[in-house]
Amino acid sequence: MAMSAQARDGDTQAQRAAAFEQLRARVAPAVEAELARLLDARVDAAKALGADAAALVDAVRALALRGGKRLRAVLLAAAHEAAGGEAARVVMAAVAVELLQTYLLIHDDVMDGDELRRGGPSVHAMLRERFGGARSGESGAILAGDLACSLAQQALLAVPVPAERLASAAKELGRMQEEVVYGQLLDLRAEPATSAEVERTYALKTGSYTVRGPLLIGAVLAGAKRALIEAMERFAEPLGVAFQLRDDLLGTFGDPTRIGKPVGRDLREGKRTSLVVELEAGDAETRALLGRVLGVAGAADADVRALVARMEACGARRRVEQRIDDLAHRARGALASLPSLAGPAQRVLDGAVSALTERDL
Amino acid sequence: MAMSAQARDGDTQAQRAAAFEQLRARVAPAVEAELARLLDARVDAAKALGADAAALVDAVRALALRGGKRLRAVLLAAAHEAAGGEAARVVMAAVAVELLQTYLLIHDDVMDGDELRRGGPSVHAMLRERFGGARSGESGAILAGDLACSLAQQALLAVPVPAERLASAAKELGRMQEEVVYGQLLDLRAEPATSAEVERTYALKTGSYTVRGPLLIGAVLAGAKRALIEAMERFAEPLGVAFQLRDDLLGTFGDPTRIGKPVGRDLREGKRTSLVVELEAGDAETRALLGRVLGVAGAADADVRALVARMEACGARRRVEQRIDDLAHRARGALASLPSLAGPAQRVLDGAVSALTERDL
Repeated sequence: MAMSAQARDGDTQAQRAAAFEQLRARVAPAVEAELARLLDARVDAAKALGADAAALVDAVRALALRGGKRLRAVLLAAAHEAAGGEAARVVMAAVAVELLQTYLLIHDDVMDGDELRRGGPSVHAMLRERFGGARSGESGAILAGDLACSLAQQALLAVPVPAERLASAAKELGRMQEEVVYGQLLDLRAEPATSAEVERTYALKTGSYTVRGPLLIGAVLAGAKRALIEAMERFAEPLGVAFQLRDDLLGTFGDPTRIGKPVGRDLREGKRTSLVVELEAGDAETRALLGRVLGVAGAADADVRALVARMEACGARRRVEQRIDDLAHRARGALASLPSLAGPAQRVLDGAVSALTERDL
Repeated sequence: MAMSAQARDGDTQAQRAAAFEQLRARVAPAVEAELARLLDARVDAAKALGADAAALVDAVRALALRGGKRLRAVLLAAAHEAAGGEAARVVMAAVAVELLQTYLLIHDDVMDGDELRRGGPSVHAMLRERFGGARSGESGAILAGDLACSLAQQALLAVPVPAERLASAAKELGRMQEEVVYGQLLDLRAEPATSAEVERTYALKTGSYTVRGPLLIGAVLAGAKRALIEAMERFAEPLGVAFQLRDDLLGTFGDPTRIGKPVGRDLREGKRTSLVVELEAGDAETRALLGRVLGVAGAADADVRALVARMEACGARRRVEQRIDDLAHRARGALASLPSLAGPAQRVLDGAVSALTERDL
């Protein structure tokens, strides 16, 4: 144990990141292939019900296969291997968490009226074209989300492991879904005034289905003992929040062509991100600028740019970056306290911290 | 066996209906109590997240507890006892199918813009008041439906039976959800021209989650063998369609105060029910009348009444009633061919056919 801990500490950050990327290279293509196979078969079957049913499934398929990095799938595989399993066995569970995300994104975009997702049209936008009307497009998207939700459940239950593990994993899937609902509601309705309130929403809205759920499902499917699962939760919690804080930075300072939505969109929509809450502690001028931009659909580009510049100047960006570092440190601390893990799992999970919290701006 | 078959045939219709009602009297209050307990606990927990989260859960609670006859719960219990189980053990599964229905009704009402459900405000109407805006109400209702969906999954997985059975039942829950999505899409989009097309939609939209799903989940949770499950499907299919056809009759000829929505609503909304499709085979005058009412939001009351009268006069109502009788007969035939059932199950299931297809107008 002492030896292995020493060897671990001897890894460079780059080696740990590479370990995560190697797992991704094993897992992501398999998940992509199974996702395509499953959805292709569903599109074919739906054709028997007519062109509209096929279009509905095809819209789910288009969004699900419009990639992303399959982070959730890779986290699930990492936890599964950490608990002694083999990633190849839980590909359908990884497909399930990707489908769960697809479902959540579809409903989220209906609620927010977002036209773009992953650099292409959102599902309600696709179906509006197909069905010839905004209302029909939204109704179709509600159904498309519901469909992806049911496919997620079914995919998870197709994993070839003992039924006890399946039932536990399915419970976790239901719990993830429930938490995201609360998180999404807070995101829509609440007016967080402190960083702590922002982070509570992030833990529910994002952390649950992005980090905790995939990790726990992966571990449970390998038959992990309670101690490992609890430690995994301690690892997951700060990491999930850090991931969403990083997302705030990306959405504000990142390259809009890479993120797939225009800069300032969150600000004009009135999203009270960590950066906004930081700014509210600023001077009168900053708050006046905030008043002209936050939640103002027609805010001037110049004001948006000035506000973003202010976020840098007044240290809001730096404070959020510092908080991400603190949370990543806490996650790594939980990782160090984990019961002995199978194989190179500690290195992979450490690499996951980098992958989730140091994504490119 | 010969004896028991004879005894069965000797039952009067009234005795069989009474057997179903006796099961309902055992099951419905227990389901009601568990549903209230589960949702009360969720409302309490949500309060920690603020008033809006509590309001969201409370809206789900209000609709879920605004009763109905718990037909699905009783069917599940009937199938469970038919396969040798005890209804008391699967109360949480019955709660799950009731929550699944709650979820489907919530999303359905958003899509159809229905303000009333079960004689009270629909969930989006409740949340519109609570959140102060139509858009917020609809977003809230999408989330409320998603919440009920996740609670349904979690309730099912809390049933105290071996995990193999739980996993199979959870698969069936996912399959139900998938089929309802296709059925709902056809209901929104398709223009059925024949009774067969209408019935295909009804099998998906209603039969799946009202009859087949509850029966199969009940049977699977008792560890039913494949032969029994297949026979149960043969029983369920005609019964599910007959149930929805009866619903068409209730919605057109029934007492509006008992149904909870105004007469003529389905006609003005343009729903192509079995009755409408029957009428299209009518004379030029009938079709002209249909043109003035079907899908015409502002259709005159006099025209609606004339159309409903025409449905009687031209035999459309009688033909739909005949079709219900035929389907009920097919369901009873499947029942007679079922492998030996435990206890008085055959009588109860026969009573279920009456309960579902002879509901009061």
